[in-house]
Amino acid sequence: MQCVVYHIPMERIRPVSVKQMIIETLSKEIVTCKILPGQVLNERELSLMLGVSRTPVREAIQFLATEGFITGSERKSWRVTVPDVNTICDVFGFRRIIELSGLDALFQLNDDQLLDYAGSLFDDINLDNVRQDRESYLKRDRELHRIFANSLGNSRAMETFNKLSVWVDWVRHLLPRNVITQNGLIEHKNLCAAIRARDLPESKRLLANHISRAEQDFVNLMSKSKNNNFIAEETVL
Amino acid sequence: MQCVVYHIPMERIRPVSVKQMIIETLSKEIVTCKILPGQVLNERELSLMLGVSRTPVREAIQFLATEGFITGSERKSWRVTVPDVNTICDVFGFRRIIELSGLDALFQLNDDQLLDYAGSLFDDINLDNVRQDRESYLKRDRELHRIFANSLGNSRAMETFNKLSVWVDWVRHLLPRNVITQNGLIEHKNLCAAIRARDLPESKRLLANHISRAEQDFVNLMSKSKNNNFIAEETVL
Repeated sequence: MQCVVYHIPMERIRPVSVKQMIIETLSKEIVTCKILPGQVLNERELSLMLGVSRTPVREAIQFLATEGFITGSERKSWRVTVPDVNTICDVFGFRRIIELSGLDALFQLNDDQLLDYAGSLFDDINLDNVRQDRESYLKRDRELHRIFANSLGNSRAMETFNKLSVWVDWVRHLLPRNVITQNGLIEHKNLCAAIRARDLPESKRLLANHISRAEQDFVNLMSKSKNNNFIAEETVL
Repeated sequence: MQCVVYHIPMERIRPVSVKQMIIETLSKEIVTCKILPGQVLNERELSLMLGVSRTPVREAIQFLATEGFITGSERKSWRVTVPDVNTICDVFGFRRIIELSGLDALFQLNDDQLLDYAGSLFDDINLDNVRQDRESYLKRDRELHRIFANSLGNSRAMETFNKLSVWVDWVRHLLPRNVITQNGLIEHKNLCAAIRARDLPESKRLLANHISRAEQDFVNLMSKSKNNNFIAEETVL
């Protein structure tokens, strides 16, 4: 008998716990609004639907509750959190703090290649492209903001930034598409131009305004809505 | 029969779960170095010692593992984390970001009473007082830094700040007492003087230096030590 020798380098397998897989599945469903805010989550139904036992489902729900995505308790019932204005303002406000420090850090790195790369991220994108291929636009969007946070070189700040980003993604799914995209594209293009021109104060001003405008869009949407049912309606848009 | 009428206003009872109580007990023991970094944690022993069942002990350990205080896994063994240089730099770096933004926010509030209060926190404290009553000094220390973070008016940033503060407290217990106190008192007094003088740029410079110096003290201590056993030795000082 001959031994098989593998010449293809194989990626190391890193086991993921069932609990972790449930967390990922559930949070994705919540963030993309497949499960809507306010919806009741039933442990037994979820375990049947996902084909897993109830214990990891309960643990996953408890974890997502500490992260704020799910509200309730074991005795009462679990529900998908309905984001309120205070939560959203906290998320955007904290992101603004991290990103503005990150922008400072990016300029301090003095890495021309990185600055040029960040500054050119939206060069080949116009509103027509965005309408045809929104995902590519959002990818650039995420990439630019990630560069700011990442420039801090602080894994703890990055971890917090990533958690906040999930909330921003959620909000993005709750808002009517056309509003965010139009404002966002112009703001991103202006911000990139300021970065290319190595104008830190102007870049900071534009970034702060961009985050505040996005925050305000959501706050406005919420104030227009009654009794928290707005979300299911708006996502239809 | 007569009904008893209570005229004393009573505080509402808010039930705390056993898991939560174990988390608080364990994290306090870790942060105050009653349980030292590297020490093995045995679920069965802990449940016997605390007089509780094993399930909440396991849940509490798992929670403290996600917070970074405990390292390991159920299959291997749990150990109190040995803080490394990268972790400490991340903690101090992230705190610096939050507090410097907070200092900006404090000055923007333009609240003379609060600025005067913050600026006078160390007026009546000298090195002799500190030697006799270190706790009062540390209370002022925490209060000043809390004012900065709190000025952001962002509950999510405050929550992160509180979590980082626990790490700073832990580091404080790992460092020889005399080093931190001497440097810290002078730095706090200078910082408060700049706040009283309403000098924001100088306040920010002094705050950034203060946090960086504390960070550096810990990094120096770690680089002097070999094989991670430094902590048990140093705390004897």
